[in-house]
Amino acid sequence: MNDRRLAEQVRIVGSGLLGASIGLGLTARGVDVIIEDASPSARKLAIAYGAGRAAAADDAPGLVVVAVPPDVTADVVAGELERHPGALVTDVASVKVAPLDELRARGADLSRYLGTHPMAGRERGGAVSARADLFIGRPWILAGHAGITYRRAAAIEDMILDLGAVPIEMDVADHDRSVALVSHAPQLIATLLASRLRGGSGAALGLAGQGLRDTTRIASSDPALWVQILGANAAAVAEVLRPLREDLDAVLGALDAPDEPGSRRVLAETLAAGNDGVSRIPGKHGQDKRYTAIVVKIDDKPGELARLLTEIGEEDVNMEDLRLEHSPETRVGFAEISVVPEAAHRLAEALESRGWTLMEAER
Amino acid sequence: MNDRRLAEQVRIVGSGLLGASIGLGLTARGVDVIIEDASPSARKLAIAYGAGRAAAADDAPGLVVVAVPPDVTADVVAGELERHPGALVTDVASVKVAPLDELRARGADLSRYLGTHPMAGRERGGAVSARADLFIGRPWILAGHAGITYRRAAAIEDMILDLGAVPIEMDVADHDRSVALVSHAPQLIATLLASRLRGGSGAALGLAGQGLRDTTRIASSDPALWVQILGANAAAVAEVLRPLREDLDAVLGALDAPDEPGSRRVLAETLAAGNDGVSRIPGKHGQDKRYTAIVVKIDDKPGELARLLTEIGEEDVNMEDLRLEHSPETRVGFAEISVVPEAAHRLAEALESRGWTLMEAER
Repeated sequence: MNDRRLAEQVRIVGSGLLGASIGLGLTARGVDVIIEDASPSARKLAIAYGAGRAAAADDAPGLVVVAVPPDVTADVVAGELERHPGALVTDVASVKVAPLDELRARGADLSRYLGTHPMAGRERGGAVSARADLFIGRPWILAGHAGITYRRAAAIEDMILDLGAVPIEMDVADHDRSVALVSHAPQLIATLLASRLRGGSGAALGLAGQGLRDTTRIASSDPALWVQILGANAAAVAEVLRPLREDLDAVLGALDAPDEPGSRRVLAETLAAGNDGVSRIPGKHGQDKRYTAIVVKIDDKPGELARLLTEIGEEDVNMEDLRLEHSPETRVGFAEISVVPEAAHRLAEALESRGWTLMEAER
Repeated sequence: MNDRRLAEQVRIVGSGLLGASIGLGLTARGVDVIIEDASPSARKLAIAYGAGRAAAADDAPGLVVVAVPPDVTADVVAGELERHPGALVTDVASVKVAPLDELRARGADLSRYLGTHPMAGRERGGAVSARADLFIGRPWILAGHAGITYRRAAAIEDMILDLGAVPIEMDVADHDRSVALVSHAPQLIATLLASRLRGGSGAALGLAGQGLRDTTRIASSDPALWVQILGANAAAVAEVLRPLREDLDAVLGALDAPDEPGSRRVLAETLAAGNDGVSRIPGKHGQDKRYTAIVVKIDDKPGELARLLTEIGEEDVNMEDLRLEHSPETRVGFAEISVVPEAAHRLAEALESRGWTLMEAER
């Protein structure tokens, strides 16, 4: 394929989901990929799967990608920097300050190292298959530091673009603080909330609605991986959680004396602050004020939703988002369709005249 | 309509979303509905909308439904019990112990009162239109107490069934504890997490993924309503949040000393407890082990998703759930389709042979 940017031979160390997916994606683009793993059987499997070839004596990789667990990332990166003195080295761990500090302490050549972080992890654990297209459309952070320029690390950005991801430049400290806020702290909070459900009755859990499902979904993530991530980004995560605990203490104080006038105010201000916070999340989903949601009742049987979406297409309206809500005990569901406000009224009328039942015209 | 169960004339006090929706639903079933509101203009609007008729001198309601904010529920229920000595009275507030206690303290006739709670609220605030079908398929709790039998309150269950909801019997204390666990505590936790986002940089929030969106979605709820709900169920909510704070303290201790051996263990045990908790939620969504998810890449343009769902229908596979994931910076999306495990492999092969790109065969 002649539209690829990366010219270098690439060596990948670690053939897990990320390493093997990078190998598959680059191989598909025609890059010469060497794939290595501490486990010979894992390496053989990745090669059989098409993620690259075995190392050879005359290899001269221009780029080395370390895709091993966070705990051993710095160690493997240091070894690769020494073994391949002409190569750029990167890694794909979810934390960036700790590996860099460790490399600096070891005196590694930081002028050839720039860590990255593809935001392509899955919440749910377990063995998943590597895919060449795992990174398409995902943000992939280039975690900059004083030892190297982005220009010098151009091959890393080329790789990211070749894999279909969206490169984002951000220094290591900003990266760790950012992911602590938008990923690591939410992971722990969802976990702490979900863990309370262990004590609930079956009847209580039978009342669970979409709100509970959504707030706890990521709590099903793999503990082994998350222990490493949280351990390596502990300070930044604690920086988010400590003020959260202060807010929680204030809320508990208010709940202990709900009839005191100050208590209602604490609750009201807390809830309003939550409104403000959630409104800061960009993107297509729920909170996005740029779109209007239309809720359509659909029978929970094959073909109904397809028919609805086909008819929306016939009305020439672009659906910006779609959510399904089910009622566990019945065969009725609801589709929440987000469209630009200009199209909402027309679509709602068109769907009603086509015989669909709308639950709320706008909200 | 001759298939309705409810024979009584029904008086509804409060013409907000719930009251007006009950009025519309019962009117549509042929019930004689009187709708009342402290605000004459709100009452007139509800009547104009078809939610019932104005009160008359010779009204003899067999059932009174109080649909006013939690703070004033007991007061209005007490008034209705006195005013209509032959009627059953119910309410639809999200908390049940506090109104009952208040009624008992006032010496109200509890042999004619049974509170209920339809689980049909919306997370997002703001004025929404009442709908006759708001309750279809939703759980609706009959909150029992020692003063009245469920048999005596049969008309209330008839109303719930006539509105298409699923009646669930649960005593008031169980109700309040249950909703504290599955609704009120999650609301506060999502709020506390979302409130942290106020301090985040735009770059950090730009990295927000589906996990953050889901964990914070309900934080956009209406503060005014939630202050009342949390205030009225304060003790039960605090009972959930207090051990959560203890767990949070343990996590913060571990994050403050991440390299001590005990710290990794605290994090691992916390994360595993979250896994356990989330696995207790029944239903169709994410965590449900009864279904297998297939992730299909779709171009973010009109008609693509409809075509996919039509083709799934042509394969005669029943889709149990559907989630969309978008990448904010590209025009690519992913549809996660949940099906019974027996159908997953066949569907995956069929979709691939129809030219769709699957991201992971199973996970």
